[in-house]
Amino acid sequence: MINKLVAKIKITKAPIVVGLDPMLSYVPEHIQKKAFAEYGETLEGAAEAIWQYNKEIIDHIWDLIPAVKPQIAMYEQFGIEGLKAFQKTVDYCHEKDLVVIGDVKRGDIGSTSAAYAVGHLGRVQIGSKSYTGFNEDFATVNPYLGSDGIKPFIDVCKEEKKGLFILVKTSNPSSGEFQDRLIDGRPLYEYVGEQVAEWGSGHMGDSYSYIGAVVGATYPEEGKILRKVMPKSFILVPGYGAQGGKGADLVHYFNEDGLGAIVNSSRGIIAAYKQEQYAGFGGEHFAEASRQAVEDMIADIDGALQAAK
Amino acid sequence: MINKLVAKIKITKAPIVVGLDPMLSYVPEHIQKKAFAEYGETLEGAAEAIWQYNKEIIDHIWDLIPAVKPQIAMYEQFGIEGLKAFQKTVDYCHEKDLVVIGDVKRGDIGSTSAAYAVGHLGRVQIGSKSYTGFNEDFATVNPYLGSDGIKPFIDVCKEEKKGLFILVKTSNPSSGEFQDRLIDGRPLYEYVGEQVAEWGSGHMGDSYSYIGAVVGATYPEEGKILRKVMPKSFILVPGYGAQGGKGADLVHYFNEDGLGAIVNSSRGIIAAYKQEQYAGFGGEHFAEASRQAVEDMIADIDGALQAAK
Repeated sequence: MINKLVAKIKITKAPIVVGLDPMLSYVPEHIQKKAFAEYGETLEGAAEAIWQYNKEIIDHIWDLIPAVKPQIAMYEQFGIEGLKAFQKTVDYCHEKDLVVIGDVKRGDIGSTSAAYAVGHLGRVQIGSKSYTGFNEDFATVNPYLGSDGIKPFIDVCKEEKKGLFILVKTSNPSSGEFQDRLIDGRPLYEYVGEQVAEWGSGHMGDSYSYIGAVVGATYPEEGKILRKVMPKSFILVPGYGAQGGKGADLVHYFNEDGLGAIVNSSRGIIAAYKQEQYAGFGGEHFAEASRQAVEDMIADIDGALQAAK
Repeated sequence: MINKLVAKIKITKAPIVVGLDPMLSYVPEHIQKKAFAEYGETLEGAAEAIWQYNKEIIDHIWDLIPAVKPQIAMYEQFGIEGLKAFQKTVDYCHEKDLVVIGDVKRGDIGSTSAAYAVGHLGRVQIGSKSYTGFNEDFATVNPYLGSDGIKPFIDVCKEEKKGLFILVKTSNPSSGEFQDRLIDGRPLYEYVGEQVAEWGSGHMGDSYSYIGAVVGATYPEEGKILRKVMPKSFILVPGYGAQGGKGADLVHYFNEDGLGAIVNSSRGIIAAYKQEQYAGFGGEHFAEASRQAVEDMIADIDGALQAAK
């Protein structure tokens, strides 16, 4: 799957991923109204609204981008009905041949991590048959529990040709509380990055490992260091746009081959029509605003990469 | 909810929690056969099997214990159908007035953590109405992302009178890879424990905070230290039984009031009938074996606490 991700980035010339993190407040009124008219102001109605919203966005942007990253929390908040919308979204993105990164940030130990891995990336055995659960292509995972928590995910990835992005340095303001603590003069995130590089070294695609890392766009200095600590790991970079990251900050997350990183924007794309810059599209044409925002993001990052050459 | 947990521990004289972590391989053949006859060897069939298995165990042990801890990964591996079984299990435990600790180990930032908190502990607003998602009483959360990740959970807990158990020192063999790293001569888990105590200090029930911690039974020395670092935090202690922890190891997880900790056993209770000690019950009477295992666990821990007085 890492090879497919790299190939699609080369074809689209877009090292970006769109975060499908729908808040109900992002969904334009006409879509909410229609969903509530059909299902009422219920969990089902909300799930229908975010699914229709996602679908229209995907229909407008799928040809521009290699990958999407649905954030499962935004669906999980609506319980079972929300998770059905998550599953529909994953399946629909696969129909459009998009790589799907499940932003699930799961992490546990042993058989429990194995169960998460099976549910999100693998197949569960039931008697003589086997089934996929949510069937994403990559999943984000949390490293706090150590190798026991990560290895069951890696095993499933190896078998299913899937991949991981392991949290190393997250984009939020308080990420330093634990991640920046100094151990023999070096921050914890560097140790985690080294471990990601080690986990990844035995699990390579053609040019990159399928065990990648998450490093926030909001910490470009740290990104520069971590790029070197994990030369063969793809870096998933959240925090672009709404969280404050800009293309020019991100050039050091990439290797000299112009690859090695994929930059996420969520709200900045899916709720573009709510920004002043794209307000002209209006709520009815929200998905066209998203397409424009994707094109602008690609230009910003491409411009920064060209300028850095 | 922390007051209810404390009250129920006092009434049952059982500072224990039973982990409802059903693997399909634990479910006795007669239950699997019946479920598969009705639904086929499908995700639905597997979900029905684990639900019936859970229900029979709960029916046999609910009066002995204060709380249960369903591990969501074991349900999530069966996709939507598995999560329906999770929800049914939570609801059924509430019918039996059990405190439900959702072992979900979620953790993200800002609005994403808020969405998880709403989905598991709170209510989601849809138009003029609001709904619960999975509606557990406590949730386990991962601290790697720092305060930004934890505070949205705390806010929901405060509003809904729910609670958290934050991972501090986990029970698995490799938990030390990051958690034991020394920062100015003290391990990371101590800093996390201090932070838990701080988060908890502003969020108190009558005698304990509703912001608790997870400290594995397999690290009794660390447990002893962490008990002092977090005097007002309830400690959820996994790793008893199948993972190697014994009652005598656990006395220092408790305060002098005999409270402050709740010890989890999962496989050791729910799959007791598979152990030599309880094999006499047989698969047909698996839930009676679970009841016996609960009684033995209570006696072990109570004996250890009495001996330590």
